[in-house]
Amino acid sequence: MVRRLLLTGATGFVGSHATAALLERGFEVHALARGRPGEPGPANVTWHEVDLLDPAATDAIVRTVAATHLVHLAWYAEHGAFWDAPENLDWVAASLGLVRSFQAAGGRRAVVAGTCAEYDWSGDCCAAGTPLRPATLYGAAKDAFRRVLEAYAHSVGLSAAWGRIFFTYGPGEQPTRVVASVARAVLAGEPIACSSGTQLRDFLYVGDVASAFAALADSTASGSFDVGSGGGVELRDVLLRLERLAGRDGLVRLGAAPDREEPARIVADPSRLRDEVGWSPSHELDVGLERTLAWWRSARLGSRT
Amino acid sequence: MVRRLLLTGATGFVGSHATAALLERGFEVHALARGRPGEPGPANVTWHEVDLLDPAATDAIVRTVAATHLVHLAWYAEHGAFWDAPENLDWVAASLGLVRSFQAAGGRRAVVAGTCAEYDWSGDCCAAGTPLRPATLYGAAKDAFRRVLEAYAHSVGLSAAWGRIFFTYGPGEQPTRVVASVARAVLAGEPIACSSGTQLRDFLYVGDVASAFAALADSTASGSFDVGSGGGVELRDVLLRLERLAGRDGLVRLGAAPDREEPARIVADPSRLRDEVGWSPSHELDVGLERTLAWWRSARLGSRT
Repeated sequence: MVRRLLLTGATGFVGSHATAALLERGFEVHALARGRPGEPGPANVTWHEVDLLDPAATDAIVRTVAATHLVHLAWYAEHGAFWDAPENLDWVAASLGLVRSFQAAGGRRAVVAGTCAEYDWSGDCCAAGTPLRPATLYGAAKDAFRRVLEAYAHSVGLSAAWGRIFFTYGPGEQPTRVVASVARAVLAGEPIACSSGTQLRDFLYVGDVASAFAALADSTASGSFDVGSGGGVELRDVLLRLERLAGRDGLVRLGAAPDREEPARIVADPSRLRDEVGWSPSHELDVGLERTLAWWRSARLGSRT
Repeated sequence: MVRRLLLTGATGFVGSHATAALLERGFEVHALARGRPGEPGPANVTWHEVDLLDPAATDAIVRTVAATHLVHLAWYAEHGAFWDAPENLDWVAASLGLVRSFQAAGGRRAVVAGTCAEYDWSGDCCAAGTPLRPATLYGAAKDAFRRVLEAYAHSVGLSAAWGRIFFTYGPGEQPTRVVASVARAVLAGEPIACSSGTQLRDFLYVGDVASAFAALADSTASGSFDVGSGGGVELRDVLLRLERLAGRDGLVRLGAAPDREEPARIVADPSRLRDEVGWSPSHELDVGLERTLAWWRSARLGSRT
């Protein structure tokens, strides 16, 4: 039996890696996106151009595709702005409509991207039992959508899973984000001012994040899952590794930029993903960072392979 | 300065009583509704016909009215069906869009109808500190909307209050609901099968619910408020009072219908409404029930005054 999967956010950071991971698991992949991917796009993916913020157009396409599976990654993601943007409300509304259309068209299994920002960051995040207490509009919007999704899934018998994404890095990241910025700087041989970088974070290679969502789509486990490595690394260690892997020294100026008020420690608990879904990451940090540097090297040469 | 208020659900049970309460407080009332009220409708209210589930049409009207205040009562309310209806998702989406449009058009103060079904009903509801743990899709949808509204209000500097409605009775109630059913039966002199009715509930006259929302609109207090009397009464006591007030005896057959699995006690804590908003109910139970009977008596005669 064909398992037809609807993928949103397919041209985004995680989504552009998810297509391959989903095809590997035998899904027939239908991508919803406002535009088409850069050429050459992934083979064997059927593209449907639609603005997910247009409910009538989205409903029409979702009913036509009549997928059995949904992986919903799309959201407002403008770097810096997304934490407090009113667009978060539009994406809650659009996501609710999407899930309703999907279910009404015969959908059976929905997997949605959540965020570690749903957790309370004032204490030790995110050990077992960390409360859900988002401090941002983005976190509150995702948290609220998850609550409705869970109740709706229970009510209509939809199988649903929620994957909370932590700190993702790798090829295709927005160039102004920290790992991408430092990768670009060290490749260009330019100094870059960074904060002290002592915060402990759970960094996961984007290909692993994508494979976790493919594994969730391929599973029947329901509820919420942390998508992370479970290992914390200080941000400064990540940045200094990038520099070292690029064969450079002294470009990453730790402490030259002000520290923000941020939690000391945000580390995922991927035990549910490991034990119930059978997923584990396959890229060590250095391997992922090497790939990231290679991608930015190619991008600088104008050939993003 | 004119305080222009946008009212949704104005033709609904609470909404039809809210117009008078809002006009009394000096608001210029603009009602959004799919249809118009029965004639004669309330004077001094400007009606705008719109389907709130049509986001573009709603946005256009909300921007034209450019209200300073919003009282949002509308929701899917089909008796019996609303607890688990997928329409709850549509109303979350519509409500998010409504609030965004209102704020973008210069809105300053939003008051929204919540529900006691947001609370955990497994324990003693709703003493101070009762957790929010809705057991139904309706409760989850309202709870989720409140969470986004709070974060959004904080983010954009909107003043927002959330009024959790408990058990409302009075003129204009849907005829199949329990108080309305029993009122109609005892007026008609017909026996009616009821459950044992031992559950303790916080019943509030619809005019008091409406006046609480008007008081909230007229206040700057923010956050969540229980809209109730604070006094619990056994359902069977309410039904037997109706019978007695109608001058009847022996029509209300307690225990003749099966009991549902329901919490033993659901009573509001209106202390925030009293202390921070200065609101208290003005109808004793017998007064409210007398009015309810009078209204159904008129309705039976075909002249709902």
